[in-house]
Amino acid sequence: MDAVIENALIQRLTHALPRSARQLNGVRESDAELVRLPGGLVLALTTDAIAEEIETGLYAEPELIGWMTVLVNASDLAAVGAEPLGILLNQTLTPDLDGRFLDALQNGIAQAAEACRLPVLGGDTNFGRRLQVAVAAVGTVEGEPITRLGCRPGDRLFASDLLGLGGAYALARLSGDTATADSLDYRPQPRLAEGRLIRRHASCCMDTSDGAIPTLDELMRLNDVGFRIEPSLSAILDPAALAVCAAAGLPEWTLLAGPHGEFELIFTVPQSSHRLFLHEARMIGWRPVELGFVEEGSGLGLPSPEGHRVIDTLRVRNLFTEVNGDVRAYVSQLLSLDRAGPTAGVIRTGLRR
Amino acid sequence: MDAVIENALIQRLTHALPRSARQLNGVRESDAELVRLPGGLVLALTTDAIAEEIETGLYAEPELIGWMTVLVNASDLAAVGAEPLGILLNQTLTPDLDGRFLDALQNGIAQAAEACRLPVLGGDTNFGRRLQVAVAAVGTVEGEPITRLGCRPGDRLFASDLLGLGGAYALARLSGDTATADSLDYRPQPRLAEGRLIRRHASCCMDTSDGAIPTLDELMRLNDVGFRIEPSLSAILDPAALAVCAAAGLPEWTLLAGPHGEFELIFTVPQSSHRLFLHEARMIGWRPVELGFVEEGSGLGLPSPEGHRVIDTLRVRNLFTEVNGDVRAYVSQLLSLDRAGPTAGVIRTGLRR
Repeated sequence: MDAVIENALIQRLTHALPRSARQLNGVRESDAELVRLPGGLVLALTTDAIAEEIETGLYAEPELIGWMTVLVNASDLAAVGAEPLGILLNQTLTPDLDGRFLDALQNGIAQAAEACRLPVLGGDTNFGRRLQVAVAAVGTVEGEPITRLGCRPGDRLFASDLLGLGGAYALARLSGDTATADSLDYRPQPRLAEGRLIRRHASCCMDTSDGAIPTLDELMRLNDVGFRIEPSLSAILDPAALAVCAAAGLPEWTLLAGPHGEFELIFTVPQSSHRLFLHEARMIGWRPVELGFVEEGSGLGLPSPEGHRVIDTLRVRNLFTEVNGDVRAYVSQLLSLDRAGPTAGVIRTGLRR
Repeated sequence: MDAVIENALIQRLTHALPRSARQLNGVRESDAELVRLPGGLVLALTTDAIAEEIETGLYAEPELIGWMTVLVNASDLAAVGAEPLGILLNQTLTPDLDGRFLDALQNGIAQAAEACRLPVLGGDTNFGRRLQVAVAAVGTVEGEPITRLGCRPGDRLFASDLLGLGGAYALARLSGDTATADSLDYRPQPRLAEGRLIRRHASCCMDTSDGAIPTLDELMRLNDVGFRIEPSLSAILDPAALAVCAAAGLPEWTLLAGPHGEFELIFTVPQSSHRLFLHEARMIGWRPVELGFVEEGSGLGLPSPEGHRVIDTLRVRNLFTEVNGDVRAYVSQLLSLDRAGPTAGVIRTGLRR
């Protein structure tokens, strides 16, 4: 059984289901499902629901719920470099839902649909005891799509923007610090244009919907490689997120731990494409964040005062599930992980390039 | 505001949402959304969740829940004459869900996916207080798709098979008569091959997911026509459904009332295509059920001992929502509708052809 709790569940749910010969990616190999149509065009398909986020109070304002419903799906399309085509909405409404709340929810959906260029093609509405909004998004990929597979040691590691805002927002909101959560104005932006540029230059790509460390853990497992973060963490983390983290007395790396992410793209660019990629990024007014390198072996090396330390990414990734979503227990476990220092006693020297 | 409660809700939810210039159908004009891709191929997309059906106990066995989750979406693809491509699964599981129940649920999904030739492309899993399974299905349409629009007076009205099993099943199940519900072995079959044949010959098509009368009501509104059922009701209704109906002391026509349907296709064939259509149907071993004719004007005329009587389809369609899903109140209201006789005093003479 897979040591990653989420992957073990996916295996249990999917092992008996029929697969398609037209599909280009295997289970977990891509943020969006890639299907070659008769005629050769590749379709990108994804579905994500906003349900637990409403139940736990992580997303409380109706506009944000609506925005995120679309954005999380657009993020998956972005990660395969797709051109957006549209979405289907699947809404479960509660019978007593306030009319203004509903209008604001639909307004958030409409705003994100405009921002992501994902018109609403259709949908289905149900009534139930709990509000839930699911979206299925469709895009097309011109040329070869990019997946989570394909990076090699020596490739450069990037993020589409500064990281950590998803973690900081979740920490504030779930700790009941509404003022701080509101001040962060958490509203991830679509990365579709960036994703199409990444598709032409990068060797693999995945979004940080579950946080940067779980994303890097998944890419490590799929590609049988390690990662080494080069800049200091304060250089790759959002300043507002760093402030929340400092106020809470948490070490900076915990902003990368998930399970709630910032919906940026993490991707790798071969050395040979590095210069052209940065040039083209500049041309669309985008400045990707250099994170470091892909390495041989396994493990995630983070910069620390004593050189690089390896983070137990598997433990970090399973932690929130293991503590049954208890935020205080989660934070306390992250702190003891931090005090434990480098796992398995391995300090990676890494390869410098 | 639309007099149909469901349509008024759809209007409220969708009026502010951006639409796509690539979409061939307007809101409500088609069972599946039709989008023309770059290159010309038409994509058919639909989404439907099984949620209320679980909550009310209408679907209780996990295999049936799984089967219906896929089938209701396949039925929408069938209604536009699509070739199935695949589905995305969006599952909300309860944390305490029994392992055998989950395996049986996935087994039902797998069986229907095989039967409908809809491989599972991917999905998303959430945890929540209530089990829910949503599917988004994708297909392609070769040539011109068929929609709910296009029938004309004089066209012949058909169903893909005998009607009434969905109504009888729901009546038995929701009245707590488990033995009868089980004996019906309710498991609608995919009509995708039939749908592709219908697409080439028919003038409009819609599935009976909400029951035959709501389907005919919607087609009447969209096409500004009436319908006249010609055969006796016992000739177009499933014998097992008729037996349930007789045992409950209900008039036969109530089997067509919905709100739970039999997931057959209702469609219209122009007189000029009638013979060729029936010939080709025979070639694939399918015997469509002749229901009657499209008429000028409006209203649904059902055969009765005193000639044709017009059913108040709007009232029938809104009834279950108006009684807040109370089955006893619903049945009692259907009975008083029946006693009230022809609505608005209009007995249609109809056009004979």
